[in-house]
This record gives sequence, C-alpha cells and structure tokens, in this order.
Amino acid sequence: MTKIYAIDRLFDAVKEKGHVCVGLDTACDYVPKAERLKAQNAAEAVLAFNKALVDATMDAAACFKVQIAYYEEMGLAGLRAYAETLKYIRSKGGIVIADIKRGDIVDTASRYAKAHFSGEFEADIVTLSPYMGMDSIEPWLKEAQTAANGGKGAFVIMRTSNPGMRDFEYLETKDGRRLYHAVGDKMAEIAAKNCGKNGYGIFGIVVGCTEQEEAAEIRKKYSNLFFLIPGYGAQGGGAKDAAILLRNGNGGVVNASRSIITAWQKEAGSENADNAFAAEAARRAAIKMRDEILSELK
Amino acid sequence: MTKIYAIDRLFDAVKEKGHVCVGLDTACDYVPKAERLKAQNAAEAVLAFNKALVDATMDAAACFKVQIAYYEEMGLAGLRAYAETLKYIRSKGGIVIADIKRGDIVDTASRYAKAHFSGEFEADIVTLSPYMGMDSIEPWLKEAQTAANGGKGAFVIMRTSNPGMRDFEYLETKDGRRLYHAVGDKMAEIAAKNCGKNGYGIFGIVVGCTEQEEAAEIRKKYSNLFFLIPGYGAQGGGAKDAAILLRNGNGGVVNASRSIITAWQKEAGSENADNAFAAEAARRAAIKMRDEILSELK
Repeated sequence: MTKIYAIDRLFDAVKEKGHVCVGLDTACDYVPKAERLKAQNAAEAVLAFNKALVDATMDAAACFKVQIAYYEEMGLAGLRAYAETLKYIRSKGGIVIADIKRGDIVDTASRYAKAHFSGEFEADIVTLSPYMGMDSIEPWLKEAQTAANGGKGAFVIMRTSNPGMRDFEYLETKDGRRLYHAVGDKMAEIAAKNCGKNGYGIFGIVVGCTEQEEAAEIRKKYSNLFFLIPGYGAQGGGAKDAAILLRNGNGGVVNASRSIITAWQKEAGSENADNAFAAEAARRAAIKMRDEILSELK
Repeated sequence: MTKIYAIDRLFDAVKEKGHVCVGLDTACDYVPKAERLKAQNAAEAVLAFNKALVDATMDAAACFKVQIAYYEEMGLAGLRAYAETLKYIRSKGGIVIADIKRGDIVDTASRYAKAHFSGEFEADIVTLSPYMGMDSIEPWLKEAQTAANGGKGAFVIMRTSNPGMRDFEYLETKDGRRLYHAVGDKMAEIAAKNCGKNGYGIFGIVVGCTEQEEAAEIRKKYSNLFFLIPGYGAQGGGAKDAAILLRNGNGGVVNASRSIITAWQKEAGSENADNAFAAEAARRAAIKMRDEILSELK
C-alpha cells in the first residue's frame, strides 16, 4: 500500500493553492503599533497578528513555516505564542512547517522528534540540520512514520539561501561532489525507500532560490525530493529563480516571510494600520507571489 | 587589554575543580520513583532532581551542560524547568553550557543569540552547528562580545561523538582535508582574533572522545581552541581517550550525562532512592571521573 506522508498533503495543497509558504517569522515590531498597545505583552501581540494573517492567507498559501527563534527570543511567553500559532493553523486545516533545524545524537533526536511531532509543539513537518550525520536524522524518520496523527515529514537543509552557504555546503569533496550533494544523495536514498503517493519521499530538502547556479542541476538530480525553497523576496530570490526548482509545476513550496508579513508597512495608510489592515496586505502579497510563480511555470 | 571570556572562566574552573562537565540531560525516568510520585508533574520532578544534583556536584564539576531536547519533550512546563535549572546553576556561581546546537541565517541567529545570552534562558555558553556557514556563527560572536553580563561563549560542533559523524564530518575534501577541518580552521581564525587571557579563543569546538583516531592531531592542530568533549561513559569514551584531547592538563571539559545522573540506579538500595540518594551517587561518580581523568594527565 502506498503511504500518504505529510509531504503528500503538501503536494496536494500546492496543486490546489499554489506554491506559497507564508513564513511567520514574526518579530514584535512587525505588528501594527495600535495592536501592540492593545496587547498585554509582545507575545500576545504576535499571536493575534499571526492569527489574522493565517485567516487572510489560508486559501492563497500551501502551508505556513514558523521560525521558532523569533518566539524563543520572547522567552516562555513567546514559546506559548509559538505553540498557539501552530495549534491555530492546524485547527484550520493548514499545514505547519516548524523551522527548528535540529540535529543531534540518537537519544536527543528522539526526544526532539517527540517534542515536535506530538504534544504542545506538534507540527506537520520540521526542518533538520544534517551536519552530525544520518544517525541524527533516522530517529525523526522513525517518529514520522509512526506518528499517531498521520504521517509527519521533514526538510533537511541541503543548499541554503544565505551567502555563508559557500563556506561548507559548497566544499568540493575528493570524489568530485560538493558537501551538499553528499547530503542530498543520502536523502534521495531515504526517499527511494519511503516514497509517497505523489512520487516524493517522506523527507524533502531545503534548497534556496537566491542563486541560479546549479539550481537546474539540483532539481534534475533530486527528482524524488520535495523542496522547501527559502530566499524569496527580502533575501533576493524571485519567481524565475524559484521556478527553476519546481518540477512539472509542483515539487516544492517557496517561502517568503518579511515580504508577506510586513507588506502592510509599505501601503498608504500604514500609520493607522491594525491587524485587519496588515492581514489584507499580506493576502495581496501572497496572491501576487503565487501568481508570479505560476506564470513562470506556464 | 586582554579580554576575559566565558571560556576563560571555564579554564579557571577546570584548574580549580577538574575537567568534569555534568550533563543534565534529565529524562523523567532518571528521577527516583518516590520523588516522581511527590512532584506535581514530570517537569517539576526533573527540576527538583537537577537542583539536588547541582548542589552535590558543584565543587567536583567545572560546569554543567543542559540538553534542551529533554525539556522540550515536556512542552512548556519542561522549558520552564529548563529555564529554572539554568537560573539555579548560575545563582550558585556555576557555569552553564546550553546544548542547543543552533545554526541559521543572520537575522534568525541574532534572535537565537538574544534568547540564549539574556532573558529567561540565559546561559554562559551555547553549542552551535556550523553547516550553513560562518554567517550563521557571526551574530553569536557579536552578541557574545557585547553581552551585558560579562563575555559569553560558544562551542561549535566539529567532530562529534556519534557513529554518524563519518557520514559528513569525515568527508574528504578536494584540498586534502576533512569537512571537520574546514570548520576547525575557521574557528581557529576567529580564536586568533578573539583570544582570552588563558590563550584560548572566545569560541571553542566540540570534539568527541569516542574515537582515538586523529585525536592527538586535532589537539595539536587546534591549540588555541578550548574543547567540549562529549562521549564519555555511556557513549563509550574513557579517561585515556579524553586525556588525549586535553593540552597541558587543561584546554577542555569532558561531559558525562547518564553515567553521572543515573549512577544511583546501580547502587544497593536504589529501590528506595530519593533525590538525596541520587545526588550522593552522582557526586561519587563525578569525583571518580574527575580523578580518573586527572590521573591520566600525570
């Protein structure tokens, strides 16, 4: 029987709603001032803002990515807002990617997997860091396959969108590859053994769209891996760059954070903005981004 | 003026108390049953256990490493116990290493650095993952140098203690190094520019003691880097293996978690154990480990 993984649900969501992943990397100063003044504290302001944005973008976004660092910065109250954001998105039928980039030894990885695939911090998909090797990925695989609430998933960081990726990810290995290929090749092996109904493996990879160099080659080489594509918008990537990484019009989601969630700051009337105003601006930005990517795929 | 970094404080602590780093990777079932029954919940049980162990080992341990995954698994209550554990250790004058292995793009790394170098989760030193490159490390460096409460520090994972380290860390590069050397070389550059009073850089590296292969070479090559040495005890490393990684009798701390914090389970009378019993056993295990390492350095 073919399995249905979280990545399959994501594939179906892309088919229905396009490729946009809304990144809720919500710093408190992204929230309109009037709403900040109304809230008890920064974490509450962020949560209310997130909810408004989720409601407004749900039908224009394939999924949401929540970067835990922005919440951790606010301490325990922030992590409560993180948990509540995830819960809210999932209660509305949305797919959540927890951007946590964990990577640790087996016992520790198992603890993390339980923390993020169940309980208060339950997400559908997480991001992982491969530096320590495949035994730091495997406990997540085991938990993902056996998760009580349907299959879970992960994106392993491979070729990221920051300039520093050239320091190690681009290192040339003795056998003529780069480090990121060594990671991608291992992930492709896992995908071949754990392939979902849409032809993609249970775990995908992170491939930034800030550089076109090697992008077409990456898409071709890792044909059974679904991509999480960061770098769009504020980081410099565009629809054309992202489209190179999408196979047959699907095969990935494209994340944008600031260009969607702070879109309201560039609109006329922003000095009197509230969450409804910000949410409408986010919705327009998400739809514009969705359509730009779709038109590149025609 | 020579700077005094957290690594310098750690060096001084090693000189005074030996090389042991007590790893508080505290799962709830490491806590004696009688104490678990007494506590309101798992997180409270873990916190009370940690406090007893900290008190009992403070004069036999250079520092404490707290693995956040074990707390994250218990959700928000667990992270509260994590915060309280860090606060307790620091209030007693102990040095805390937050084992969080973060690694992300600049904006995100800055948020994380604020989260873990100040506020509720304030630690003295953190662990970081280098996969994404040096721009994922630099924001931590900036925060560490300017931290309000004295210099902070970090250990960047280089050659870890798990079998999977051979997958990527050991990859041979075209220029005849391994990936871990590429990481170590960059860290040595930072250390040369940010050297503390004891001759070690502001940031150190993680080097496991599970394998002697290349260990002596690593110690020699990275002479200005202080080491966090995992893998002792339950993971298979011994005093002889750890000693190879210690230069001139200092230059690193050796972490042991389970072999210290679950030592009580192997003692006569463990069926009636309470936290005081567990703490005494932990103290004996820490002193034994300290003395074994010291005797290998003679």
